Amino acid sequence: MDNAPIGVFDSGVGGLTVVREIMEQLPGEALIYFGDTARVPYGNKSEETVVRYSAQIIKFLLSKGAKTIVIACNTASAVALEKMKEMFEVPIIGVVKPGAKAAAEVTKNGKIGVIGTEATIRSGIYNDFLRKTDPHVTVYGKACPLFVPLVEEGWLEEDTITEQVARRYLAGFCGQEIDTLVLGCTHYPLLRSVIQKVVGDKVRLVNPAVETTRELKYLLEENHLLNESAGAGESYAAAGKEVLPRHEFFVSDRAEKFKQFAAGILPSVVLRQENIGVEIFE
Amino acid sequence: MDNAPIGVFDSGVGGLTVVREIMEQLPGEALIYFGDTARVPYGNKSEETVVRYSAQIIKFLLSKGAKTIVIACNTASAVALEKMKEMFEVPIIGVVKPGAKAAAEVTKNGKIGVIGTEATIRSGIYNDFLRKTDPHVTVYGKACPLFVPLVEEGWLEEDTITEQVARRYLAGFCGQEIDTLVLGCTHYPLLRSVIQKVVGDKVRLVNPAVETTRELKYLLEENHLLNESAGAGESYAAAGKEVLPRHEFFVSDRAEKFKQFAAGILPSVVLRQENIGVEIFE
Repeated sequence: MDNAPIGVFDSGVGGLTVVREIMEQLPGEALIYFGDTARVPYGNKSEETVVRYSAQIIKFLLSKGAKTIVIACNTASAVALEKMKEMFEVPIIGVVKPGAKAAAEVTKNGKIGVIGTEATIRSGIYNDFLRKTDPHVTVYGKACPLFVPLVEEGWLEEDTITEQVARRYLAGFCGQEIDTLVLGCTHYPLLRSVIQKVVGDKVRLVNPAVETTRELKYLLEENHLLNESAGAGESYAAAGKEVLPRHEFFVSDRAEKFKQFAAGILPSVVLRQENIGVEIFE
Repeated sequence: MDNAPIGVFDSGVGGLTVVREIMEQLPGEALIYFGDTARVPYGNKSEETVVRYSAQIIKFLLSKGAKTIVIACNTASAVALEKMKEMFEVPIIGVVKPGAKAAAEVTKNGKIGVIGTEATIRSGIYNDFLRKTDPHVTVYGKACPLFVPLVEEGWLEEDTITEQVARRYLAGFCGQEIDTLVLGCTHYPLLRSVIQKVVGDKVRLVNPAVETTRELKYLLEENHLLNESAGAGESYAAAGKEVLPRHEFFVSDRAEKFKQFAAGILPSVVLRQENIGVEIFE
């Protein structure tokens, strides 16, 4: 069982920032990833729809032998995690709770900003978790619906339009003296430096992927699911790609475009040895 | 049969610019609209996926008694129209061919620009139809993937960011001396004035919805499907909303948001009297 893969899913390519983190922190684990590229983005869909899509994808990942599920999508974590935990017996972790925990630890003045999709911000879930961790914090949320299409267009760092969009979305934080900003969408770490430039050096950016992976490790240990060879990352690397754990990637549309995008996020050795499958749910 | 509704569909709200045109030109016709708001946008999906979605929606519209189908989505018209004509017996019309015909008639110097989604531009279909109509024209295509999210964010006319995005996308046309520009996506008429500002007054903008509705009228006449009362638009209006034809609207997600958006596009009397249903295909 501990050799079974960790199932990871996202609405599209953004979840690969979580995959990258897992590969770094847990190099012995095999991954099976599903990106719902046919139905991306999730952020402007209703709760019912995101719940339905999440259940379909988890069923698929379980059919492929996943031993645990990481919901690497803030929107799905925000609106579907609790229902998925009720529906499935396998351990399931989302990115929101670990992200909120990290932010509550980082802040000094207790003023925290959260940016994400419309659905994530509307759900108020970061606010709920942050105030559960520390009732004294004040949380300011802001939806940034254009960030995902800007990332998918490839207008990333150093882009004047992306910077202006960021300034418009983030202007409201300036008066609030936040000292911490949660990147509450897995696409947003790809805009990290432009966001940092706009909010200024005094604001600490929190990427929930980092903390999520730490919690994932505890979850695996707790459930005796951690791959014993997980500590052998360096010897894996030294031994070359032949003994790297097998990863599998599936998307619901446009595998080629996914591969291109993934090439900019993941270590090249990963994608060189894997095929990307297309899976359709209807 | 001539009292049966015209079925119209789009990936989301954009097709309402076509609905508005049909209501104006054919005021006696009842409409049944489907907006695939759960799976919008279509423009970055593969051909196979758009074909599958189109077939699902047409089946639904036929189950509701549609006498003819208008594909009010350039992407679906570009990649799925011919296959839909093979699959279904009912008359089906798309927006691309009428749009191309109108552009070929308007141009004087034979240099035509086309803007649309990635899928529409990649298909090269405007180029094919334009050159079939007039082999001497030169066609310049440009995909503008951010225009749809900008429209959905409500950053429309007079918006400095939208204007800069338009300048970046349309800069390439400046050297080409086009005198005609096809708005090859049903969302784009909502950015009409900013696009006109950027390309300059000498360039004529072509909105395929206008010509599509003219062709729809011929198609209905040809198939003896035109509602006899279609010429009675003025007396309809004079008699008040009670005798307006019944329209039905369906979406695959977020009916409330659709209604809000539609309120900015359609005559208010239409939406006041209709409910919006939610229909799911999986």
